[in-house]
Amino acid sequence: MRTTVGIIGAGPAGLLLARLLHNAGIDSVVLESRDRAYVERRQRAGILEQATVDVLRAAGAAERMDREGLRHDGIELRYDRRRHRVDFPALTGGKSVMVYAQTEVCKDLIALQLEEGGPLLFETEALAVEGAETEHPRVRFRHGATGAEDVLECDWVVGCDGFWGVARAAVPSAVGRTFERTYPFGWLGVLADVPPSHDELVYARHDRGFALLSMRSPSVSRLYLQVPEGTDAGSWSDEEIWSELERRFETDDDWTLRRGPITQKSVTPMRSYVHEPMRHGRLFLAGDAAHIVPPTGAKGLNLAVGDVVTFARALVHRAGTGSEELLDAYSATCLRRVWQAERFSYDMTTLLHRAPDATPFDDRLQVARLDRIAGSRAAGTDLAEAYTGFPIG
Amino acid sequence: MRTTVGIIGAGPAGLLLARLLHNAGIDSVVLESRDRAYVERRQRAGILEQATVDVLRAAGAAERMDREGLRHDGIELRYDRRRHRVDFPALTGGKSVMVYAQTEVCKDLIALQLEEGGPLLFETEALAVEGAETEHPRVRFRHGATGAEDVLECDWVVGCDGFWGVARAAVPSAVGRTFERTYPFGWLGVLADVPPSHDELVYARHDRGFALLSMRSPSVSRLYLQVPEGTDAGSWSDEEIWSELERRFETDDDWTLRRGPITQKSVTPMRSYVHEPMRHGRLFLAGDAAHIVPPTGAKGLNLAVGDVVTFARALVHRAGTGSEELLDAYSATCLRRVWQAERFSYDMTTLLHRAPDATPFDDRLQVARLDRIAGSRAAGTDLAEAYTGFPIG
Repeated sequence: MRTTVGIIGAGPAGLLLARLLHNAGIDSVVLESRDRAYVERRQRAGILEQATVDVLRAAGAAERMDREGLRHDGIELRYDRRRHRVDFPALTGGKSVMVYAQTEVCKDLIALQLEEGGPLLFETEALAVEGAETEHPRVRFRHGATGAEDVLECDWVVGCDGFWGVARAAVPSAVGRTFERTYPFGWLGVLADVPPSHDELVYARHDRGFALLSMRSPSVSRLYLQVPEGTDAGSWSDEEIWSELERRFETDDDWTLRRGPITQKSVTPMRSYVHEPMRHGRLFLAGDAAHIVPPTGAKGLNLAVGDVVTFARALVHRAGTGSEELLDAYSATCLRRVWQAERFSYDMTTLLHRAPDATPFDDRLQVARLDRIAGSRAAGTDLAEAYTGFPIG
Repeated sequence: MRTTVGIIGAGPAGLLLARLLHNAGIDSVVLESRDRAYVERRQRAGILEQATVDVLRAAGAAERMDREGLRHDGIELRYDRRRHRVDFPALTGGKSVMVYAQTEVCKDLIALQLEEGGPLLFETEALAVEGAETEHPRVRFRHGATGAEDVLECDWVVGCDGFWGVARAAVPSAVGRTFERTYPFGWLGVLADVPPSHDELVYARHDRGFALLSMRSPSVSRLYLQVPEGTDAGSWSDEEIWSELERRFETDDDWTLRRGPITQKSVTPMRSYVHEPMRHGRLFLAGDAAHIVPPTGAKGLNLAVGDVVTFARALVHRAGTGSEELLDAYSATCLRRVWQAERFSYDMTTLLHRAPDATPFDDRLQVARLDRIAGSRAAGTDLAEAYTGFPIG
């Protein structure tokens, strides 16, 4: 099999890249190890930055998002039983975000790809990227149905296969450098069939730990609790979850948390990770294959979108001009944005989570930081700009 | 001996308080354990916030400062061999700071106090504050000349006697709460008889550690190097100091560091500390007696000024109205500002210093933070507002 761009992974990065290339008249093949149902069920992020929304619209993949997505003009910070709203458009000159689950983005892109785009092969496991330093890199893969090994010959390979994927392994360790931080806590996330108790996301800092109120739709709540690293989701009963959420969201006014049937429970670990560079020869890394952020800043999906937009632009530029300057700049261009997102995600995480070894000084510092954000237009703007997103490219 | 306000400590807090009370027609006595020469020689901070400058002017203690002080409209952040200027007036709507050494402030206030004010007793060691919870608190002290113990009877006592002073010990531990953080590094500071190599302060982040270029006058440089906690200043030769400073300040342009004779060397430890509350009965804590900041944010002296201004206003308010509402609010009023300064000082310290256990991720995070400050008006404004100072009261 042969194509211009071999794409490993049918998450949002790989699917969007296939769409962008298709729209630009460039061939691609997407290899995905899981089946379609699994990909369409995977629960991930749900906050699309302004730039991500714009990209999806320009790519002709926003029809359902524009119908069903929820535009959010702010978030609430909750601490010391107080509530502070961060007003995005007022602080950023009109920017907002869209609440539309990553899993829905994937469904939309899969449907479009299968209908209009190039091959999208599910249950097809990439085994290795070979010849990244040559003009003709290849992806060795295994057909799901037969188990037979095969080779996809490409001009370019883009690894969109996530943190655990094979693409990054093709960068020799003498060339690559990794930057990492783990956190001694995770998120216990639940989906509940109950209308969200607030119309915007609520980020709560509490002495018992962080909590986040989010939503998937007007009738489905998405709620998170900071839990110790390695917690088993099954060890929390529904009753325990709701009463812990109630404690962490408590306010001095009459706000109440609506309870409903919990339909899913899982624990997400928290990690910061960056691999530099994001390119090796004709292999490019995009999204989680190159970098991970803790979910507090809602940046993971948006970074992936930035990466593949940057790659697609660079390849189109080469097709039009013959110049590889943008391809050569890919890693540095992406990493500038990646490190700003890493910084913001780290800051949001340490602002709101309680470390197991937190001292009373650390607690006061968190409240002072929240007071500063609540009391200073500059500090509020800094947060709002980062939350609604850094420019791509 | 008896007075209205017993002031322990003739640092800038105690001296300024005596001046403010004198101007308001309220008696005070200042007790200082050291001799005048020692107090006038003590090297401390040198950056006066806009509000501190305004207070000194209003107190009639700014004549020499206005003649000899150096108005600074910005600082330089230096990292990755690059230079970024933070322009204070442009970012804050006109605010700036004044470079005028704390020791000069003290000299001016001592001269004024001895000429116009109430008793200022050097070599007079406060031993204990007694009866803080009564209407008539007392300071037990020892006369330097005779060694005899004596008692100062007061209506109010203000402890301006620094971190190691006796005033804070009069707050029962069941009432007080402390918040603390130490840092695994200190500052090796030198005074050098050489014109400053830059006309504004230069804060340098370097893989070898932090460095700061400051000045005491147009002909005297004040320079600092981050060194490991517990370093002996004598273990660094002048040559080692200059060459280490040169490395940490290196840039890609032709900037050079001017060398000159080093006239003084000392190591400052780094600590964050807050005691809550800042009042117990008729005993009030001000300045370092209540809180310590690492020097990176240049906040120590300015916090002390805020505290004594807040106390003096509250006492004048009581004299005018009979109401103790402002005195009752003293601790909470001061602590709001104190915690913002603690936050800022912590942030400036962790932004610029290299921790002994810093990971490559931490290094990249520092550079991303500096890039953000350099690239975002909001983030730059947040820093400039904090540096030029939070409002008093």
